[in-house]
Amino acid sequence: MKRGGDKSERASAASRGVSPVSAPSTSLITLLTDFGTSDYFVPAMKGVILGTNPKARIVDITHDIPPHDIEAAAFTLLAVYQAFPVRTVHVAVVDPGVGSSRRPILVRAAGQAFVGPDNGIFSYIYDREPDHRVFHLNNDRYFRQPVSATFHGRDIFSPVAARISKGMHTSDLGAQIGDYTRMESLDPVKLDHKRLSGRIIHIDHFGNCITNFTERDLESAGARRLIINGTSIKSFKRFFAETTGAREKLFGIVGSTGYLEIAAENASAAKLLKAKRGQLVVASS
Amino acid sequence: MKRGGDKSERASAASRGVSPVSAPSTSLITLLTDFGTSDYFVPAMKGVILGTNPKARIVDITHDIPPHDIEAAAFTLLAVYQAFPVRTVHVAVVDPGVGSSRRPILVRAAGQAFVGPDNGIFSYIYDREPDHRVFHLNNDRYFRQPVSATFHGRDIFSPVAARISKGMHTSDLGAQIGDYTRMESLDPVKLDHKRLSGRIIHIDHFGNCITNFTERDLESAGARRLIINGTSIKSFKRFFAETTGAREKLFGIVGSTGYLEIAAENASAAKLLKAKRGQLVVASS
Amino acid sequence: MKRGGDKSERASAASRGVSPVSAPSTSLITLLTDFGTSDYFVPAMKGVILGTNPKARIVDITHDIPPHDIEAAAFTLLAVYQAFPVRTVHVAVVDPGVGSSRRPILVRAAGQAFVGPDNGIFSYIYDREPDHRVFHLNNDRYFRQPVSATFHGRDIFSPVAARISKGMHTSDLGAQIGDYTRMESLDPVKLDHKRLSGRIIHIDHFGNCITNFTERDLESAGARRLIINGTSIKSFKRFFAETTGAREKLFGIVGSTGYLEIAAENASAAKLLKAKRGQLVVASS
Repeated sequence: MKRGGDKSERASAASRGVSPVSAPSTSLITLLTDFGTSDYFVPAMKGVILGTNPKARIVDITHDIPPHDIEAAAFTLLAVYQAFPVRTVHVAVVDPGVGSSRRPILVRAAGQAFVGPDNGIFSYIYDREPDHRVFHLNNDRYFRQPVSATFHGRDIFSPVAARISKGMHTSDLGAQIGDYTRMESLDPVKLDHKRLSGRIIHIDHFGNCITNFTERDLESAGARRLIINGTSIKSFKRFFAETTGAREKLFGIVGSTGYLEIAAENASAAKLLKAKRGQLVVASS
Repeated sequence: MKRGGDKSERASAASRGVSPVSAPSTSLITLLTDFGTSDYFVPAMKGVILGTNPKARIVDITHDIPPHDIEAAAFTLLAVYQAFPVRTVHVAVVDPGVGSSRRPILVRAAGQAFVGPDNGIFSYIYDREPDHRVFHLNNDRYFRQPVSATFHGRDIFSPVAARISKGMHTSDLGAQIGDYTRMESLDPVKLDHKRLSGRIIHIDHFGNCITNFTERDLESAGARRLIINGTSIKSFKRFFAETTGAREKLFGIVGSTGYLEIAAENASAAKLLKAKRGQLVVASS
Repeated sequence: MKRGGDKSERASAASRGVSPVSAPSTSLITLLTDFGTSDYFVPAMKGVILGTNPKARIVDITHDIPPHDIEAAAFTLLAVYQAFPVRTVHVAVVDPGVGSSRRPILVRAAGQAFVGPDNGIFSYIYDREPDHRVFHLNNDRYFRQPVSATFHGRDIFSPVAARISKGMHTSDLGAQIGDYTRMESLDPVKLDHKRLSGRIIHIDHFGNCITNFTERDLESAGARRLIINGTSIKSFKRFFAETTGAREKLFGIVGSTGYLEIAAENASAAKLLKAKRGQLVVASS
């Protein structure tokens, strides 16, 4: 299995030599949803968490995932989880199927816990952390009663996350499963010995277009240019502030997530390229 | 007095068997404003709170209430306060009349405290919690000095909320009053024995239209359909993911606040209906 | 040097009689960036901070500074820092030059700490707090390794801020410097003995236009009216809710930051005036 990022980025929290057992409990819980921040959804989750674990520290990843976009949530989680200490509990709720038969799950990986629906939202964690284990949260004793039909974030995921942050054993929460949902991997596809086919997996606040090419992908393909929307990009930089050659406004740079980004000097690359998420990018020698 | 939600939703925090006296102090403070999140308003409130009570935990309800929309703030608070533990202090500042003669008040209800201007913002709490008491915050000793003309959120409500979260007695802060401002109740109006007139009280991030009909309202009226903007809705579901009949894209569902919502399968009901907040909805048998 | 605000607003935290040495550590850290809240940037910073100092309390100032707008960030920080207690550590990252030779710095002023790039972002703190000291963060032992090319907020500023909040000595972090970057001051310019030339330094969420005129500026110039975009404003109020004369919709008011604001009754002054940030305002007698 191929993985993103340079070596140190890729090292799992567990392999960074920190023992989840001996580490002091941080009671750190993160929230990642598509709920927006105008409604009562997110504060309701926080109220339930703090009612169960008053010492919890809650960090918002983001609540601006496009509605029902599981892939965007999965990538955002991948980009950020390694910045958090072991024992962190991540709650991710982007869930078009609330009320359907999809299961609530707990994932143990990298010394951290991940709680959310079994709809593929943790796929990139599965890819990056081969030692993950997945559990079906089938013990409803720790759910908020009555469980509403439409808001499992408040009634299932938040109270369970709060219990985990207080040290509850996984075996008290549910049973391990093997048939969990998994999206396709982020790896680019080899077209021929000269070309690699990838795509834009995220466009950030500054208009940088993050691709699914890692530095290793590009090196092993001997890639010297990127082609997107008919535009060829041949300039690569190490720092945003490096100057490029005349008129080379667009350039590639390995960003803070370990993936190659297409960026522009003091401008939005996405606007210049009229690029959209999911769009094809070809790396070629 | 009629109330929203199913029985367990409606049960006040106090009646859930948790004693506000014996419960450990959570120092939990929530903030609900129309200040947005681009300015220095919200962090200034947080700085003042943490300067007075460094152990306070602050949770944002939302700061995206439409400017000066007291009713929207009142509904959001109603939808979320029961998710928080007893002793929580809620600060709500949507205040077109800052600098006018409206009084700063403290409300004690459901084992929680509510701090804000006396402009009706706590009306739905008054309705839901008959045992509420209201106090005029007339002791300026605990205000931040000098009190600015325009920013009582920072100079009055935040320092007082921080004091309350540290356990200060209500009698030290102000005197009980009976003539506080109260908006009309949320209850729908009976048109005749077959029809109930209600309205859309909130449109959420997903375009779901929350009405002021509770399940009990609909049952007692024997309602079988909703009429809004000339569209008749006859499909009712228990879960978002339930499939409805052919072409029945729009449906009613009792949402997580205990109120009937008009929703659509993977679409914004508000867009489909061209619905706006405040708009008439008729429930009919 | 002229300063904004009334006397009590202007008093530095240090001079308010609170000793930074004897005060208990609050471990309070604020974040001010142009990163937005849709990406993984802000939570990555928080994860790193809490990994180093699990007791840190993090407050978001705002992350909606217009991309690369150092002046807007500098003003927002000026408007809010005095609401925070001594020992607060402010992290401000608006940084068009990431990867360039600009230095990471620490500023000690008003009993607080300020961490960010040396690009002028702390200029208004330098003006308001003459006793400030500036240090070059040249000890990379406390950086997150490896330091990425593009995300110093996560890899340099966050871990250093966490160390400072735990009480690390400044001398362990870097050496004092005198040649730090400083933007022009906020002071208005005297055109003649009757007129003062200023500008709009911020437009807030409600459309209020904050100018760089302090009450003292206006008094010493004997100003009786403001001219902006050909509109003359002669009405001045102490409270938003005061009624003004017939048709005097626009008025001046000294706001909560100590600067004169141009506001409108229940309307956006910015819209009425078609005003933009940076725009000229003349105060005249």
